[in-house]
Amino acid sequence: MTSSRFEQGLKKLSEIDGEAGHKVIDSLQDICPDLARYTIEYPFADIYSRPGLDLKSREIATVAALTALGNCQPQLKVHLQAALNVGCSADEIKEVILQMSVYAGFPAALNAMFAFKEVLQERGLL
Amino acid sequence: MTSSRFEQGLKKLSEIDGEAGHKVIDSLQDICPDLARYTIEYPFADIYSRPGLDLKSREIATVAALTALGNCQPQLKVHLQAALNVGCSADEIKEVILQMSVYAGFPAALNAMFAFKEVLQERGLL
Amino acid sequence: MTSSRFEQGLKKLSEIDGEAGHKVIDSLQDICPDLARYTIEYPFADIYSRPGLDLKSREIATVAALTALGNCQPQLKVHLQAALNVGCSADEIKEVILQMSVYAGFPAALNAMFAFKEVLQERGLL
Amino acid sequence: MTSSRFEQGLKKLSEIDGEAGHKVIDSLQDICPDLARYTIEYPFADIYSRPGLDLKSREIATVAALTALGNCQPQLKVHLQAALNVGCSADEIKEVILQMSVYAGFPAALNAMFAFKEVLQERGLL
Amino acid sequence: MTSSRFEQGLKKLSEIDGEAGHKVIDSLQDICPDLARYTIEYPFADIYSRPGLDLKSREIATVAALTALGNCQPQLKVHLQAALNVGCSADEIKEVILQMSVYAGFPAALNAMFAFKEVLQERGLL
Amino acid sequence: MTSSRFEQGLKKLSEIDGEAGHKVIDSLQDICPDLARYTIEYPFADIYSRPGLDLKSREIATVAALTALGNCQPQLKVHLQAALNVGCSADEIKEVILQMSVYAGFPAALNAMFAFKEVLQERGLL
Repeated sequence: MTSSRFEQGLKKLSEIDGEAGHKVIDSLQDICPDLARYTIEYPFADIYSRPGLDLKSREIATVAALTALGNCQPQLKVHLQAALNVGCSADEIKEVILQMSVYAGFPAALNAMFAFKEVLQERGLL
Repeated sequence: MTSSRFEQGLKKLSEIDGEAGHKVIDSLQDICPDLARYTIEYPFADIYSRPGLDLKSREIATVAALTALGNCQPQLKVHLQAALNVGCSADEIKEVILQMSVYAGFPAALNAMFAFKEVLQERGLL
Repeated sequence: MTSSRFEQGLKKLSEIDGEAGHKVIDSLQDICPDLARYTIEYPFADIYSRPGLDLKSREIATVAALTALGNCQPQLKVHLQAALNVGCSADEIKEVILQMSVYAGFPAALNAMFAFKEVLQERGLL
Repeated sequence: MTSSRFEQGLKKLSEIDGEAGHKVIDSLQDICPDLARYTIEYPFADIYSRPGLDLKSREIATVAALTALGNCQPQLKVHLQAALNVGCSADEIKEVILQMSVYAGFPAALNAMFAFKEVLQERGLL
Repeated sequence: MTSSRFEQGLKKLSEIDGEAGHKVIDSLQDICPDLARYTIEYPFADIYSRPGLDLKSREIATVAALTALGNCQPQLKVHLQAALNVGCSADEIKEVILQMSVYAGFPAALNAMFAFKEVLQERGLL
Repeated sequence: MTSSRFEQGLKKLSEIDGEAGHKVIDSLQDICPDLARYTIEYPFADIYSRPGLDLKSREIATVAALTALGNCQPQLKVHLQAALNVGCSADEIKEVILQMSVYAGFPAALNAMFAFKEVLQERGLL
């Protein structure tokens, strides 16, 4: 069953984060493969696979939270990619980031917007 | 024009936060009415009135951020109410809170879930 | 197997947090039993049951982190209890809190020390 | 010399925080007198006694920081009192709090403004 | 009127942040010009243009807050420049940063001091 | 006596942080030697020299707190080194980091684990 959680999580990770997610998992193998396993099992099998909220709304929530926290830029960039992957438009993502200026201040919104600029440039969309 | 921003914001505040929002604004009048005015103008007229994202998605973003920040329970409770007001189901809101355990840890998710329990009890929904 | 994770976690929760932990779990039942389940499965079955670090060191880590974060007093109080439960002396716990003044500032240390004062008073130890 | 740091700090604490500061120190005596001593020696003897910045500016800095951090309301209230004690006008303090909406978001500013409302009411100034 | 807020804010931005502020605004033009506009209108026209607090005190507040938050180094560097621009001496700024060790811990103070070292080096003052 | 605190602190700094600690102190000399002095006196003479908790437990507490705070990577890296210096095994440190996923979320744990990977690589241990 653990192994089925792992496989379910890995499939969900591929669906949401694509290559960027797999890179994170790969880079944990030589230092702490258990953190890789937990990252797949708890967030992706237990949480993101739940039926009660669509993936687009889930990524809106995650982009909002990571923008507001402001201290995890690598994960924010992965989820800015993920938000595009699951169907958010670039304009919707910008709205989420803009809105965070209200709750976490302008520096948090500015830093997230510049992270999104990098993401769009990496995708050749800017 | 400032006054039209104010009126637009007040209307949006009523639509989203209802009575709870007006209580916050009222309680600022004797200490700092300018903060009341800015709270209406910037968040509600400038941001929440923008067309690029529906109010349901906006409240998902706000609930996620306030859950993750974990240090603004009064505002979280207002926006848990707001999320219900603009059409999120209780189950969708629970999903957002659950998901925050991944990004901000279990204490943040637990405290938000207990705040939501209070909100549902105040509404007679639990 | 999920169920065996649940049972393993529940046993570990009892060992560490005692009654206080069960109260948290109970109070989730009417609002989000899945959060109760995840709280038992991931932190207690997956993490606290791992053999690589003794429970005393684990509680030192948790008290340090919750003191430093400063926005989750209910969980801090549960883990100040837990630290005593698993064999930390009151003086060792005070040292951890004192040390946090260096990393998170004096307000964080003061608020945690006052929380610990309440815990010791609840136990009749002060 | 340690004792002279202690006495210098105690004098500075009285000058800045008045009765509220002494209450904090007193309430530490039965749980951790060393934290009381360090709180007097490092912040008040080492830092607030330094000549390079006037006390009014120091309290502006502290009120700003505690408003922005948002997780240490008791200390914020002590320093809102202190800011008034060392010569900040109520209006200047409101400006500092208002400005924090830019850097830490509206919830942080709102919660600090409501804390200041309580302080002014306790002083009979509102 | 919105346009007059914009122009007032732009003038205030020039006065405070100089070239560094304009670079931030410019770099937003291709990704989200509305965030550039809001950054000028709310912080600079609405807040920094208010008469109740001098710009030197405002920058002391901002440097304190950004040092304490610790997760927005680019904005901290802009405001360390701004503090010098509006008349804070380098020594006064160092006092503000030193003082933050009390409220946000030594890492926050150290990281801000190293940011200030870079600012002074960029200005040829160190 | 201040000078004896300084010497005691310097000795403790050498014992715990080794070369990395001295580099931090050295790099403060041209910008703010007083911050260097305070960093030695308060954390290292006053706190880390206290007898009530062993250095291994102290470093577990510090690594936990800096992982959870997530906004002071340079200091986290110094203390990941320090934890190894005072006798924590690499596996024990990984457990502390893993455990922080529970209290501060997966991004905090991931970023600390990648910092630890760098530390182990710098030591030729990976």
